[in-house]
Order: sequence, then structure tokens, then C-alpha cells
Amino acid sequence: MPQLRKDPIVGRWVIIATERAKRPKDFKVVDSSPPESECHFCRGNEKFTPPEIFSIKDGQGNWRVRVIPSKRPFLDMENHFWKKGKGPYDLMHGMGRHEVVVETPEHIGNMADLEVSYIRDVFYTYCVRMREIEHNEHIKYVLAFKNYGWDAGGGRIKHSRSQLIATPVNLKRVKEELQGAKFYFNYHERCIFCDMINQELQQKERLVLEKDGFVAIVPFAPRFPFEVWILPKKHSSAFCRIGEQELYPLANIVKTILYRIKKLLNDPPYNYVVHTAPFKRPHPGYWSTIEEDYHWHIEITPRLTEVAGFEWGTGFYICPSLPEESAKFLREEV
Amino acid sequence: MPQLRKDPIVGRWVIIATERAKRPKDFKVVDSSPPESECHFCRGNEKFTPPEIFSIKDGQGNWRVRVIPSKRPFLDMENHFWKKGKGPYDLMHGMGRHEVVVETPEHIGNMADLEVSYIRDVFYTYCVRMREIEHNEHIKYVLAFKNYGWDAGGGRIKHSRSQLIATPVNLKRVKEELQGAKFYFNYHERCIFCDMINQELQQKERLVLEKDGFVAIVPFAPRFPFEVWILPKKHSSAFCRIGEQELYPLANIVKTILYRIKKLLNDPPYNYVVHTAPFKRPHPGYWSTIEEDYHWHIEITPRLTEVAGFEWGTGFYICPSLPEESAKFLREEV
Repeated sequence: MPQLRKDPIVGRWVIIATERAKRPKDFKVVDSSPPESECHFCRGNEKFTPPEIFSIKDGQGNWRVRVIPSKRPFLDMENHFWKKGKGPYDLMHGMGRHEVVVETPEHIGNMADLEVSYIRDVFYTYCVRMREIEHNEHIKYVLAFKNYGWDAGGGRIKHSRSQLIATPVNLKRVKEELQGAKFYFNYHERCIFCDMINQELQQKERLVLEKDGFVAIVPFAPRFPFEVWILPKKHSSAFCRIGEQELYPLANIVKTILYRIKKLLNDPPYNYVVHTAPFKRPHPGYWSTIEEDYHWHIEITPRLTEVAGFEWGTGFYICPSLPEESAKFLREEV
Repeated sequence: MPQLRKDPIVGRWVIIATERAKRPKDFKVVDSSPPESECHFCRGNEKFTPPEIFSIKDGQGNWRVRVIPSKRPFLDMENHFWKKGKGPYDLMHGMGRHEVVVETPEHIGNMADLEVSYIRDVFYTYCVRMREIEHNEHIKYVLAFKNYGWDAGGGRIKHSRSQLIATPVNLKRVKEELQGAKFYFNYHERCIFCDMINQELQQKERLVLEKDGFVAIVPFAPRFPFEVWILPKKHSSAFCRIGEQELYPLANIVKTILYRIKKLLNDPPYNYVVHTAPFKRPHPGYWSTIEEDYHWHIEITPRLTEVAGFEWGTGFYICPSLPEESAKFLREEV
């Protein structure tokens, strides 16, 4: 049964993935993925995957986008939910969900190469799954993210897909964002993300693209070269409450940015993470203004530099490119 | 001139390393390190490095451990220190130091293969440099760390060395530890690290080694498989105030752990980071009990798993091995 454990000093929850638990000799094994010719995510190979949870179909009844449970889930919905302590330590049942969103029936590797309508369906699928999972009383957060390419944790199977992880705890980075945004709101009575968007639209030097209600910017203090954030200009805290008419414009700007990253930076590995407000607000008084002070967005991080190990241990990043130059470069149409 | 920029939402400082600024086409270039036969860190090749800052010599006057400035520093001591804001953004001069500690004159790659006396001299060297740098009014922290192996950011030159980065800001992870430890201390009036050590010595299941005043444990909620923390049993907040008689026992336990990691896990890349209290306490009232509530330690993290990209974006880690099993495995003598 998977466990969640809390670091007693900094309060960071970690999944101890016992279902995947490896013995020391199992690390660094050769990848045992099926050869590309037998990709389990392609149309016609549905029998190789666990039963479908959700799908979007075309006019002929064929699926376009499809959600399946992970074969090796980090978290599970079985067993009774429990929490306990031991000395200074806290742990709880690793309750949750781990799902895979297959983004196309064709064997296409990079989301940058999908038609916008598929990307739109992927984001719609995230919303549907989030709204469904929200009903579970123990789940606080759904993380939607993509790992593309080996160096970004994407594995060796080159079929465009992303993942949903539903957790019974709020993630550390999300908490930090909520706290930072709350602190700013308490003083200024304005959303820090809205202020940031206004600043970037005025200054323009880190703006990559502004289109149909969305902006793409290189953040002022990026962790990685060519990091890009995509934000809705209209204030909104919860991604899964996005209007249906906003999905296509969102997909369009995401596709444009991913395609520029692919073309201008030589098809690098990348990750994206959807940052959205959590479902449950542990302290109603504290979180009561969350609708006003948090602003959902997508963070896209290409993997262009070697791993600088100490950054993991310190939260201190060294970015080897000027954000303003990165933005200028990414403004180029391709 | 290097800059430090602060993320306005979560308050994380990032170095924008303009001295290293790369154009997009410069990423993923082939490493231009000299061939191993011309290693600049070996005895006899001192002329290839910048002038020495500090060294420890043997009886014949030959250096054993040597500190040199980085050829491509992230931070510099030149120019006048400045801070400024622009809209919601804060930035400051990237003032600081970036030094390389060459750990042996021989061409030995892994610290695990050095004699204990050399490792002792390396830790002594950290202390000397920290105590010296502490006098600079703008410097708040010195980060001592090691990247070993390509996947840990160690580059291609296989000569055992570590780095010191002196910064005018406190690092995010260090702040979090200080705040977490302070919170615990305020309630319990005990150091959380001391409590953790006692718990581990009682439970024994995550204890790897206890020797001459130091313990090596696998933490309760590790981010990485086979992560190991080494802590002094005697409470102490500042690494650079370590007693000279404690340096050899520290070097000895570090060597033992690094050697076991090398032998038992097939010589993996790894990082270590020395976690110590900052020099300056920005709010004297707040930090006044820092000597009581913080406890220096060294965190060693082998790189055994593929990069799971979303962990960068969320601070949410998935560890694929049980800490108790990792500890049991590392208790094996080799």
C-alpha cells in the first residue's frame, strides 16, 4: 500500500511508492518499454491498457483523447484512508489516483505536433477528470502535468500523453504560491498574478505572446532557460472552472509556444505543470479569499541544461540565460 | 554583471548568471573540458588555474587540498552592491563568491576513494573559507556542496572537487528549515533535529551508522532512494564552528557512507550539500534562538532514478524505495 510521509522539518509530503518499490539492484535497469511498433497507446492496441476511464470520441465513435489508469500507480483508491504519527513523524495512506491522458490515437510524440483541436480536448479532459475527482472527500489536489522526452522523465515510448495525480495533501509548491499570493493580496488587495500580467504587458520585454485572452511570458526570475508561463488575462483561481469557449484559445497559445520551443531550440525535452487552486481549503478563514488571490496558470520548462545537483537540495537555481533575451528569441514566428 | 532576482510569488531568489549567458544555440553543446590527460586540477598543472586562494600543505610544502576561484563564477565581488525594485519585482547585484575546492593533487574521481585525512582537510577548508567570508557585510550564506558524476552536474572532468558559493541572500530551503525548526522549538522547546536523532537511535530501522559522535540515517521522508543525512549528535547550529577534533570523525563517517554507496550501488552520481545556519540573522528577535533550534548536517543524495520532471515544478517527490529497506541495505559493511 503506498504511503505519504511528511518531512518533519520543512513539512514536505513525499510519496513512498511501495508498489514500485525497487531493490537496489533494480535501479538503472534497461528500460523495459515495448518496442515502438507495439506502442500500447496507439489506436488498435487498447487491449494492452487497463480499461478506459473517460474518452472524447469523434463523429465515427473513435476516440481522440483517452484516459486510462496508470499501470504502475503511485497512489491508489483502495483500502480505508488512515493517518498516523510516530514520534516526530507523520504518515498517511497514499490514497489518490494516478491516470494517464493519451492525447492522440496516432503515434505522435510531441504535443507541439498535435492539431489544436486535440490539445483543446486534452485540456477539456483535465477539467472533466478534476471536476469528477473533486467529489472525493479525501482528495485535496489534482496535479496535471506532462513529461516529454527522456531527460524530462518522459520515458522511452514516444506517444504524446500527460498524467493526472490526485493527492490527499496539498503540494508544497502550491502551498507556497497560495501563501505568497495571499500575503500580497492582504497588503495590496490585488492579485499578484494580475499585477504581474499588467507589468509584463506594459514592459513588454518578457512578453512572448498575447492572444485571445491569454498571455505567454518568460517569468522575471525563471529557474530554467526559456521557461514560459501561460496565464489567462481574466482573473480565475481554478483551472477546472475554465469556460468552454476559452479552451480553444488556451490550446492555441500552448501549441504555438510548444511549437516554437521545438523548432527554435531543437526539439528539447520539456515539462509542463498546471498550477490551480486546491479543492479543499483547510482553514476556511485563511483561504476564504482564494478566489480573489490565486490565479491558475501553466508553467512550461524546457530541459536545456545539465542537471545542477545542488539545486535539488537548496531550492536555489542558477539560470544561464537572461529572461529578456529568451523572450525576444521566443517571439520569433516559425 | 550577475544578477539575483526574486520570484515575487514564492519569494525564491534565482541567480541570472549573465557571465555564463548563453545564446539559444549554445545549449546542449559538446563539453569543451580539456582531455583527462591535461586535467587542470592535477599536481603540476597549477598554471592552468586562477591563482590559489587557500591551500593545506604537506610536510614537504606540496599542497594536499587547494581552493581556487571558479573560472566561470556565478557571482562576483566586484562592483558596488545594489538592490532595486521594478513594479512587483526585486533584483540585486549578484554579489558573492564562487570557489572550487580541489580535494587531492592526484587524479582521483570519487571522494569515496580519498584517504580519510584528505576528506578531513576538505571539511577543514570549508570551515576556514566560511569563517573568512563571514566578515563580508553583504554575504549571508556560504553553500558548500559537491556534484559527483555527469548526472549530478559534476561535468566530465573526473577529479574530486567541491564548490563553495557565497550569497547575499538566504537560500529558500535553508529558510524553510530554519522556520520549521523554529516552529517546533517554540512549541516543544527542543531542537527537532536532536529529537529526530533520538528517535532514530531508539527505532534503529533507518539508522545506517553511529560512530564517534555522528549518526548517518536515511530520513523518514526522503526525496531520493538511498538519500542519507549525516548529523553530529551534539547539538550545534553552525558547521564552521565545528571543533577541530570532530573533523576526522566526520570525515570518517562521510567516507564510509560514500564508499558504501559506491560499492553497493555501482558507483552512482551523487550530490552532497552542507546545511548550516546563515551568518546574518535579519531579524534579531526572530532568529535569536537560532543556536538552540537549528542543527547543521550534511545531506547526501545519490542519483539513481530518471528525472521526474514535474517534481521540479511542484516540490512533490516520489521515492521508489522504502527508507527502512534502504537503511538496512546501507548497513552492510563493504
